[in-house]
Amino acid sequence: MKSEGNGMRCEIISVGTELLMGQTINTNAADLARELFSLGIGVYYQTVVGDNEERLAEVFRQALSRAGLIILTGGLGPTEDDLTRETVARVLGLPLFRDRGWEGRLEDFFNRIKRPMASLNLRQALVPEGGKILPNDRGTAPGIYLDLQEGEGPLIILLPGPPPEMLPIFRKQVIPLLRAKLQEKGALAVLQSRVLRVIGLGESELVEMIAPLLKNQSNPTLAPLAKRGEVHLRMTGRGRSEEEVQTLLEGTAQKLREVLGDYIYGEDAEELEAVVADLLRAGNKTLALAESCSGGLLSHRLTNIAGSSAYLLAGLVTYSNEAKMHILGVSPATLQEDGAVSAKVAEEMAAGACRFCRADIGVGITGIAGPGGATPQKPVGLTYLALAAQDFKFSRRYEFWGSRQDVKERVTNTALHLLRLYLLGKLKSN
Amino acid sequence: MKSEGNGMRCEIISVGTELLMGQTINTNAADLARELFSLGIGVYYQTVVGDNEERLAEVFRQALSRAGLIILTGGLGPTEDDLTRETVARVLGLPLFRDRGWEGRLEDFFNRIKRPMASLNLRQALVPEGGKILPNDRGTAPGIYLDLQEGEGPLIILLPGPPPEMLPIFRKQVIPLLRAKLQEKGALAVLQSRVLRVIGLGESELVEMIAPLLKNQSNPTLAPLAKRGEVHLRMTGRGRSEEEVQTLLEGTAQKLREVLGDYIYGEDAEELEAVVADLLRAGNKTLALAESCSGGLLSHRLTNIAGSSAYLLAGLVTYSNEAKMHILGVSPATLQEDGAVSAKVAEEMAAGACRFCRADIGVGITGIAGPGGATPQKPVGLTYLALAAQDFKFSRRYEFWGSRQDVKERVTNTALHLLRLYLLGKLKSN
Repeated sequence: MKSEGNGMRCEIISVGTELLMGQTINTNAADLARELFSLGIGVYYQTVVGDNEERLAEVFRQALSRAGLIILTGGLGPTEDDLTRETVARVLGLPLFRDRGWEGRLEDFFNRIKRPMASLNLRQALVPEGGKILPNDRGTAPGIYLDLQEGEGPLIILLPGPPPEMLPIFRKQVIPLLRAKLQEKGALAVLQSRVLRVIGLGESELVEMIAPLLKNQSNPTLAPLAKRGEVHLRMTGRGRSEEEVQTLLEGTAQKLREVLGDYIYGEDAEELEAVVADLLRAGNKTLALAESCSGGLLSHRLTNIAGSSAYLLAGLVTYSNEAKMHILGVSPATLQEDGAVSAKVAEEMAAGACRFCRADIGVGITGIAGPGGATPQKPVGLTYLALAAQDFKFSRRYEFWGSRQDVKERVTNTALHLLRLYLLGKLKSN
Repeated sequence: MKSEGNGMRCEIISVGTELLMGQTINTNAADLARELFSLGIGVYYQTVVGDNEERLAEVFRQALSRAGLIILTGGLGPTEDDLTRETVARVLGLPLFRDRGWEGRLEDFFNRIKRPMASLNLRQALVPEGGKILPNDRGTAPGIYLDLQEGEGPLIILLPGPPPEMLPIFRKQVIPLLRAKLQEKGALAVLQSRVLRVIGLGESELVEMIAPLLKNQSNPTLAPLAKRGEVHLRMTGRGRSEEEVQTLLEGTAQKLREVLGDYIYGEDAEELEAVVADLLRAGNKTLALAESCSGGLLSHRLTNIAGSSAYLLAGLVTYSNEAKMHILGVSPATLQEDGAVSAKVAEEMAAGACRFCRADIGVGITGIAGPGGATPQKPVGLTYLALAAQDFKFSRRYEFWGSRQDVKERVTNTALHLLRLYLLGKLKSN
């Protein structure tokens, strides 16, 4: 994807020896870049530099020579290692003033936690001349916004390093300031993304189905991204207003829904287990799980959704043959003749869970998660999934691939997919 | 921590518009920095630049002016966007030659997958004059190693962007080359880290216990890092040989073991579930789980360990009171009088799981994962854990905190901790 935009070129400088040494992964730069993209602002360079005054000054000087917007994160703490505020002021030739408002906030804070305020902490109330404090609700280091040379020079923004402090300041305070700035310059282009989440199709099958759309589509752009067991389709639209972009995105979403139908299970951050949970609640259905190779992951995923006790009666991880017979009533003859990894055992597990827990729906999963346990006829990843309900019986054979954890993830994704289809009335009894 | 080192200054350049736009998080730079640290090589700058020839050339030229080792990742693919190889050659003024060996590998590869090789793919066999191919076992883009000006100029290393290709090349091929280079210069300082994993102590308790050690310790350095439900103690030692550093690390580990005893459950990447699995296997013990608020996560974690079917007989996620009574034999009177979240119910769950599955050890977990379900007497996070075995009975009350997923994680960590103590013969019946 090309980073076009509205002409404002951004550079991100992340300050911190822990980043440089790899003890912390630089998620801030990626998070900022995605947020800036939605304003049509392209990032051209990201640099990481340690807590070293000379090198930070060098990197900052270079950014001043080529960027219209410079965002620095980190180095605003109270210790002597924290040099960003002072270095930026020195390079710009600006004196530092103490912000009385923030000084009061610091005093309140130390009173509240009943600790004396060290004089070093007062450094966190210093602001280069002309700068504006960006209050921090979660820490003692505020952000700073510098709009120099009456708006003709580059915009400079300093933000604290910890992501839980940095991101709220950026989203709630910096984005509105940047929006206003772009509006003022008549350069406010709106970029928005929307993700359609697809299950039950591989990436190449999906790309084949939407090939005509992919070819003729420029605004919004369309990009498929394969995830473990599902594919995300990202649409990114550009326009002059949110309404205009929303209309564009909805138009394309509509066309995709016509082609992909029930393969689309959700949007944006909506997870498959949450979609299934909503359907269970809406249909007032209860569920019992019988898992073997997925080892409790399906139960774990469904219980990650708050309120799951309303529909999940029990999850039975029956690893041993004894547990399958004893708890679920799987017949010894089936285990003997078809083996534990078979369609019939999956079906008996699903029916057993259903009956034993008096649930509306039972799920049965049996397979080989690997790396051990495979035979030439039954490779790692071979899995049978079954659903049972009153007057309903379904089972299917799958071959999944990848590591043990990949297999568990793909198995549970497929089980959730089948549950969803069943709850939508789209799965046929077999 | 300061980045001292052996005098070789490294700069990492990551190439790719997907990094610049934040669609991919730059884990490569952090992974490389940590690996380099173990050789005593300090990273001074990390830069991210998009798939743009002019800007890449500018960043690379700057690195040439200040670094002794330049590592570039990304931009070695077969498409026109991939410019790293050509740009590096152009800036250095070196012609590109086709490496016959790699050309053969590419032909073999395309024969094997029965697809025609596009002429663009042949670019991946190009090497700047004097460069050495670093074979890639997992992809078509090899790495390239350039040691210019008879070893007097900077070392330049090009690596493919995808981490599963980049890291093995770096670890297996580049590290030995760098070691040899440092040895040649008489600058091989060895830095090594070792992590002791601590469970059952909060970070501040731990710091208090090891305060005398923390104060007088400079080589190895000691740094505690709090993780969800456990603390990692990182020791980093420096010396002239691996043996010397290992001896230093072992000396400090010994002192820590004297103070912390069984609170240390493992080292480095060893996970708690793997430690428990080893103890179960060694003691030839079988296990049955009865989970409520942890929702199958304990079962999921234990089954992530390959071969878990040898000791895990069953995991029973009994969310409803009916399931607790029906499957585990929890008495209706106990549920009525003490409530589902109580010590007695946890104990009956553990005993029930044990009895029902004929396991050696039963685990019972009941609590409130939140955000709903709390009362003034029973807050979110309140959890009772119980263990049952022949002539053994244990239960304890805990209050965990955090989100629903945090609570699930902390609950299962504590359950594994208790299992470990029991298997070590260090948990008393109550």
